[in-house]
Amino acid sequence: MSPDLVTFGETMARLENPAVGPMRHARSLDLGIGGAESNTAIGLARLGGSAAWFGRVGDDEFGRLITTALAGEGVRLDHTVVDGTAPTALLFKERRSGTLTRVQYYRTGSAGSRLRPSDVPHDLIRAARVLHVTGITAAISDTARQALDDAVETARDAGVPVSLDLNYRSALWTPAEAGECLHTLVKRADLVFATEQEARLVVPGDDPAALAAALAALGPRDVLVKRGAAGAVALCEGRLHVQPAHRVPVVDPVGAGDAFAAGYLAEFVRGLPVADRLATATAAGAYAVTVRGDWEGLPGRADLELLKTAENDVTR
Amino acid sequence: MSPDLVTFGETMARLENPAVGPMRHARSLDLGIGGAESNTAIGLARLGGSAAWFGRVGDDEFGRLITTALAGEGVRLDHTVVDGTAPTALLFKERRSGTLTRVQYYRTGSAGSRLRPSDVPHDLIRAARVLHVTGITAAISDTARQALDDAVETARDAGVPVSLDLNYRSALWTPAEAGECLHTLVKRADLVFATEQEARLVVPGDDPAALAAALAALGPRDVLVKRGAAGAVALCEGRLHVQPAHRVPVVDPVGAGDAFAAGYLAEFVRGLPVADRLATATAAGAYAVTVRGDWEGLPGRADLELLKTAENDVTR
Amino acid sequence: MSPDLVTFGETMARLENPAVGPMRHARSLDLGIGGAESNTAIGLARLGGSAAWFGRVGDDEFGRLITTALAGEGVRLDHTVVDGTAPTALLFKERRSGTLTRVQYYRTGSAGSRLRPSDVPHDLIRAARVLHVTGITAAISDTARQALDDAVETARDAGVPVSLDLNYRSALWTPAEAGECLHTLVKRADLVFATEQEARLVVPGDDPAALAAALAALGPRDVLVKRGAAGAVALCEGRLHVQPAHRVPVVDPVGAGDAFAAGYLAEFVRGLPVADRLATATAAGAYAVTVRGDWEGLPGRADLELLKTAENDVTR
Amino acid sequence: MSPDLVTFGETMARLENPAVGPMRHARSLDLGIGGAESNTAIGLARLGGSAAWFGRVGDDEFGRLITTALAGEGVRLDHTVVDGTAPTALLFKERRSGTLTRVQYYRTGSAGSRLRPSDVPHDLIRAARVLHVTGITAAISDTARQALDDAVETARDAGVPVSLDLNYRSALWTPAEAGECLHTLVKRADLVFATEQEARLVVPGDDPAALAAALAALGPRDVLVKRGAAGAVALCEGRLHVQPAHRVPVVDPVGAGDAFAAGYLAEFVRGLPVADRLATATAAGAYAVTVRGDWEGLPGRADLELLKTAENDVTR
Amino acid sequence: MSPDLVTFGETMARLENPAVGPMRHARSLDLGIGGAESNTAIGLARLGGSAAWFGRVGDDEFGRLITTALAGEGVRLDHTVVDGTAPTALLFKERRSGTLTRVQYYRTGSAGSRLRPSDVPHDLIRAARVLHVTGITAAISDTARQALDDAVETARDAGVPVSLDLNYRSALWTPAEAGECLHTLVKRADLVFATEQEARLVVPGDDPAALAAALAALGPRDVLVKRGAAGAVALCEGRLHVQPAHRVPVVDPVGAGDAFAAGYLAEFVRGLPVADRLATATAAGAYAVTVRGDWEGLPGRADLELLKTAENDVTR
Amino acid sequence: MSPDLVTFGETMARLENPAVGPMRHARSLDLGIGGAESNTAIGLARLGGSAAWFGRVGDDEFGRLITTALAGEGVRLDHTVVDGTAPTALLFKERRSGTLTRVQYYRTGSAGSRLRPSDVPHDLIRAARVLHVTGITAAISDTARQALDDAVETARDAGVPVSLDLNYRSALWTPAEAGECLHTLVKRADLVFATEQEARLVVPGDDPAALAAALAALGPRDVLVKRGAAGAVALCEGRLHVQPAHRVPVVDPVGAGDAFAAGYLAEFVRGLPVADRLATATAAGAYAVTVRGDWEGLPGRADLELLKTAENDVTR
Repeated sequence: MSPDLVTFGETMARLENPAVGPMRHARSLDLGIGGAESNTAIGLARLGGSAAWFGRVGDDEFGRLITTALAGEGVRLDHTVVDGTAPTALLFKERRSGTLTRVQYYRTGSAGSRLRPSDVPHDLIRAARVLHVTGITAAISDTARQALDDAVETARDAGVPVSLDLNYRSALWTPAEAGECLHTLVKRADLVFATEQEARLVVPGDDPAALAAALAALGPRDVLVKRGAAGAVALCEGRLHVQPAHRVPVVDPVGAGDAFAAGYLAEFVRGLPVADRLATATAAGAYAVTVRGDWEGLPGRADLELLKTAENDVTR
Repeated sequence: MSPDLVTFGETMARLENPAVGPMRHARSLDLGIGGAESNTAIGLARLGGSAAWFGRVGDDEFGRLITTALAGEGVRLDHTVVDGTAPTALLFKERRSGTLTRVQYYRTGSAGSRLRPSDVPHDLIRAARVLHVTGITAAISDTARQALDDAVETARDAGVPVSLDLNYRSALWTPAEAGECLHTLVKRADLVFATEQEARLVVPGDDPAALAAALAALGPRDVLVKRGAAGAVALCEGRLHVQPAHRVPVVDPVGAGDAFAAGYLAEFVRGLPVADRLATATAAGAYAVTVRGDWEGLPGRADLELLKTAENDVTR
Repeated sequence: MSPDLVTFGETMARLENPAVGPMRHARSLDLGIGGAESNTAIGLARLGGSAAWFGRVGDDEFGRLITTALAGEGVRLDHTVVDGTAPTALLFKERRSGTLTRVQYYRTGSAGSRLRPSDVPHDLIRAARVLHVTGITAAISDTARQALDDAVETARDAGVPVSLDLNYRSALWTPAEAGECLHTLVKRADLVFATEQEARLVVPGDDPAALAAALAALGPRDVLVKRGAAGAVALCEGRLHVQPAHRVPVVDPVGAGDAFAAGYLAEFVRGLPVADRLATATAAGAYAVTVRGDWEGLPGRADLELLKTAENDVTR
Repeated sequence: MSPDLVTFGETMARLENPAVGPMRHARSLDLGIGGAESNTAIGLARLGGSAAWFGRVGDDEFGRLITTALAGEGVRLDHTVVDGTAPTALLFKERRSGTLTRVQYYRTGSAGSRLRPSDVPHDLIRAARVLHVTGITAAISDTARQALDDAVETARDAGVPVSLDLNYRSALWTPAEAGECLHTLVKRADLVFATEQEARLVVPGDDPAALAAALAALGPRDVLVKRGAAGAVALCEGRLHVQPAHRVPVVDPVGAGDAFAAGYLAEFVRGLPVADRLATATAAGAYAVTVRGDWEGLPGRADLELLKTAENDVTR
Repeated sequence: MSPDLVTFGETMARLENPAVGPMRHARSLDLGIGGAESNTAIGLARLGGSAAWFGRVGDDEFGRLITTALAGEGVRLDHTVVDGTAPTALLFKERRSGTLTRVQYYRTGSAGSRLRPSDVPHDLIRAARVLHVTGITAAISDTARQALDDAVETARDAGVPVSLDLNYRSALWTPAEAGECLHTLVKRADLVFATEQEARLVVPGDDPAALAAALAALGPRDVLVKRGAAGAVALCEGRLHVQPAHRVPVVDPVGAGDAFAAGYLAEFVRGLPVADRLATATAAGAYAVTVRGDWEGLPGRADLELLKTAENDVTR
Repeated sequence: MSPDLVTFGETMARLENPAVGPMRHARSLDLGIGGAESNTAIGLARLGGSAAWFGRVGDDEFGRLITTALAGEGVRLDHTVVDGTAPTALLFKERRSGTLTRVQYYRTGSAGSRLRPSDVPHDLIRAARVLHVTGITAAISDTARQALDDAVETARDAGVPVSLDLNYRSALWTPAEAGECLHTLVKRADLVFATEQEARLVVPGDDPAALAAALAALGPRDVLVKRGAAGAVALCEGRLHVQPAHRVPVVDPVGAGDAFAAGYLAEFVRGLPVADRLATATAAGAYAVTVRGDWEGLPGRADLELLKTAENDVTR
């Protein structure tokens, strides 16, 4: 059976200090995995959808950590390649204070960045309900960008909607480089997710609504401008939606955007209307930030109910 | 020497995930004990009173954990039964986010639910200054409800005041079942503790004061309506008291109600006036919620002083 | 594609004290999963084979823990049932000293014990290279034993070899009950795994070789008598093999037998000769006991190489 | 009801590095309690006897830790004094390697060393079946030594047997000081526990049997010479017994002697013959050393059975 | 090369409960070091300055912990004395709730309190750009106070500015004792750091500005009145500055004052103007309170940049 | 003052799984540092000698971890370079079982491998009592090998003895490459440390004595052939010594060789005879292996005494 969502990119082993402070003070670093695209795949799978992710991992324990975690979450990995010639990339996250974070990559020449067009499973994409990509893949290597182009074209040719999360990473390219490349991608996408800052890499605009309009003018029918604790502004199928966020205690903001995309797409592939997509998107974002880790807090359907019940219980 | 307070019920081993998130992600679960009645017994003992608890525990490590913890806190266990025919009950607490919690019991057929009238130590109850019971005992088994009735009648016959905390648990019975049973219990109680929702299971009422009045009309001379961070409304000996809560960082709200009862009863058995009972009740509640666990944060007398000093020090 | 090995049974959440001593002293219990049949499925999958496991789990976090772990290890779960009417079983393991262990189950009425004939995927079994079962399934409930019978008959009818690990559990039935039932099972099995004690439940015999011969006389073509640190005695295809064990530091002996079966069957399904099966079986057993947990230490192919290299390096 | 055993002395908070190595490398130190006499009281209580301990603790968290732990283990503390004028003593244990340990005390002027004759509960001692003392009490302060003398005389006058564990601590006094004082104590004791080295502080002797005979010549009817992994040599009621030790993996040898005394005395107060006393003494010692901590591993009756079963099961 | 800052005093091993609650519930205590003066030395060194600290530590693991930590942070210890006759002082910090803390010292007769005038390195002080002292040193022993006087006089004679942080500790002396002594010290200081409460020990004053003026009237050219989350009021070189604090999540307020002094002095020794000194002082204070521990969170120059960037990024 | 020992090379951040098993199962990895040469520098410093290490580290938290740890241990770092253009190298150590370990480097293009001749502090080397180098430096990069040559020549020209530990790393070069290079280095060294296998890369020989003789024939006056638990064979100043090892429980064998060199050189620079050098070398090796980590267990002088005392106490 074909998956609802196909996505791909580089997923890394993630190491971070368990308590905030200088990372050199840590006696141990917490180990997990992270990758914008695989986070979204997990999020959709937890909400009952089926998701496939492909990419390259090294033939090492970190590669096996990635495939174990994704398979455990029910993400299909049939087209994932174990590349014996390069190591799995590492992401070190220094939680320097409750609100300040630094990132260090060991990513140059990694297995994940060796993704190439021949890795792209055309039939899988053609049978999907949505192809989800991010701007990160365009930045990690030339072959990865070619694979991205190939996948997007394959989807477009087959009439499969293309979902794009801009996901700008300053460590990987300059705003100018990113802006040019992302502009091209937005034009070929059907759904676009962006923060205000990311949107401004591509189009001008003073406020979220203006940015959404400017992006939509490039072609996408759904544009989602994410505003963190301020919620989201969406221009979907020609109509503007202002969606507030849930008020929750924030433990770790990383992954909120991937969760938002997962929630939105989970309802999109089920054919639900925009209001439902936005509701699930913000609920998924809320769960993501209340738990340590990039994807660990993502909700299942029962968790959505739990949140709803709690918020309706005014006396709770 | 007779204890100031006698209480009884089912105390369970408690297991919960150390960090918020899906419980299945935890590599270990924190182990402790919990039981509404024994929590209150510990709270009163920490405040210098003497408390006895009885009930059944299994002949297993969880039963020994319970008796070790209670004896360590100075709670008398002379009438506690080790039941070799059934396991100690388990309570799993999934901290799903900073504010959302799920509970799963392994409680069916447990040693604690095998409590029966023959376990009730009549002489101990007759010599106490107060008998404290909760609605939970009425819900766990028929024999436990019979033991509850027996204990309450014994106290009433001996002129020992009966303290009742409604303590509704939705996993154990329906609102209708609970309402009927609790109504009967309130009529036989001298002191009643309830949240607004719990009060509404028994009597109608729009606001805390109305609920307190309605409950008091059934008989009890002291009715305490607990409102969490909003404090408490009390109708004691015919007079209404509105008690604000301390403002503290909440780490774990579980056990706040048991702490409130412990604080109130600790001063009640010493013959202190209502204002003092309420002050200690709210201070005990404040300490309970700033520490992980159901009872671990309960204050001693020196802790009450520490809180008072800190709040009076405006420059602190 | 059909899996090489199909197996089924009850897999439980496993909780144990992290440091040896009375379990009540533990502040937290390590959480994992365990089940003889799923351990063997994982072991075979790690060695490059394909394995499917089926059974029932509760609709709770422990059920999700089990399916996440098994799917992460690449075990196929297409026929696993989430039973919303009963909880997942629990296994508490008290490591009382370095060599003494106690077990307590919360297993009565569990989801896993509700396994029934209608859960058996006949087509899956008919297409497998081996069906692996254990005596535990016969002991957990009447419906589970019926499912066991159904599965074994299905395999036999289709010419699929039946592998049986006696796996006697004294908490579940008496030696007499077990002996009678296992006798019947041995007669229908093609491969039989047993410790000396387990073998004696079914047949008389003074030493491993005699026991193996007596078991083989009941029908199985391969009989493996496991002797822990003393290795194994095998009567396979009519020939006796005495296989020594690797000398390794033992951290946790639980799961060694499941590992042995996994190693043996991994080579069996590849059509390798007995000597290779025994070599992999003992290597898998060696890895299993050097790591905490029932299955966590099971080796991949590269680990087998690592062990071989180390043992050949006399100067190491 | 009178306790079987009465004992007293100084119990300290114990802090030690969780992993072997220089203590300064530890990021945290494990916290517990330790005291030779209270260890023995716990050991006897776990074996079903009743034990009372008295002494002084500070009015601080470490004092409360001590009373909570002892009360939790069922040791009676009715005569324990909370001394608000001095801190509870601390014991730091640096586990420098698997076999090498260093100790640092913060004990000068401690609450425990302020023990004095007026603290001695004469009636409690007169009603006991045995009074158990150690040489440590004689070394911590003049008033403590006076209390020791007072207690011993009280027991002797009442015909209560006096049990003495020499327990030499080089940090507290010189061999010469200790030898003189312990000589006097041995003459007044009925049961004496000593290692070979400790025995030689008091009497000459080439081997355990000679040492036992020399000690017995001073008066005691039971002399137990402890030899660690080599077992014990006992001269009890005029007859020599050579008792082997159980073979167990040693995790922490501290507390083995206190366990041995506890096991011996547990059967002594039940009136069991010497062979049974020695059997329980060595089993208790075996459990003590397989668990981290001074007393945490001490066995209950069921643990003795578990050990016996395991050793009788040759195939296990 | 001479250090920019010379400071001295008593640094202690610090032990605290990892989770808030009664300290007796902790199974382990976190181990670190703390000392107002050495905290400031570390803070200045992290900001690129050079700092020397001297004092006495015991010849034990806690002494070695202190010298290892300070040397690791680049603080020069050439004149630090290892005193083999007394133990290193201990500081126990009971985090009783998120906002309430208790402290217990094992400090009487400690190595650090044996500091004496002969320990003072006159040449080192004469060559420094600032001598930093605190009121604590005056309170720990007579010889320490003499050493303090000696050091201050040495600096004044050599024209080296004297920086004084009042740092009142109620466990060490009374307000009256402290007030008298600190008054004398303020008169000899060039820079003075104080909270409002500490200032009032020395001078009268209703508000921070009045207090600063009153202190400045005694001689110091820079007076810094610290107000925690409310920032600071400074009267420096005759001009009043009102400095707001950064808004950060507070994890552990201990050490904020030492951090403030470190930040201020780091820019002072570089000859930067008051505005820069205050900016760095408040940034250092902000970092100090967002990380557990007294000094662990202190910022480097890159951390100052990170904070600035984050606060300027309004959309972050 | 000049240091006794000068050494240099690449020191890495070291990450390893806390419990043995597949590294992907670890939830956190322990963080420390490791480098053969800096391990030896720490070892010599702990034994009272003065040691300087130089090399390159990245301008990141791992670089700061390395300099903090080494400075904390008293190793001088005046010539260490912080290289802002490359990351600090990482070493992942997978403890796969109690005796089997795998290593994975993230070392290509690291800061440490950018060591070059211009980094070599000639005056420092000329003033030292010994220059200590290892074969690893020759293998990490061309510039590092040039720096190695430069340093060795500088020492030889100045009459400073050159100590060489062969330290073969199979991940960095082939036996043939290593053999040729190490042969050249041995000829220029005064002291040579090697395992039997390492020795055979350079010279033929059946047994340790033959290997020592063959190496000595190339020039060095002291040749130390290390044999792990079997001790060492030394050909020093023309005389053969057979040194047994201490019998200790081995926790982590990594770093034993570096410890051996440290012990030997610590006495060498003090001018002690060969027997003393060997005694300290084997004691240092014994301590190194009883503690987790590459250097953490290295002994101080007091630790040597503790070991000696324990071994002489036959009754202990």
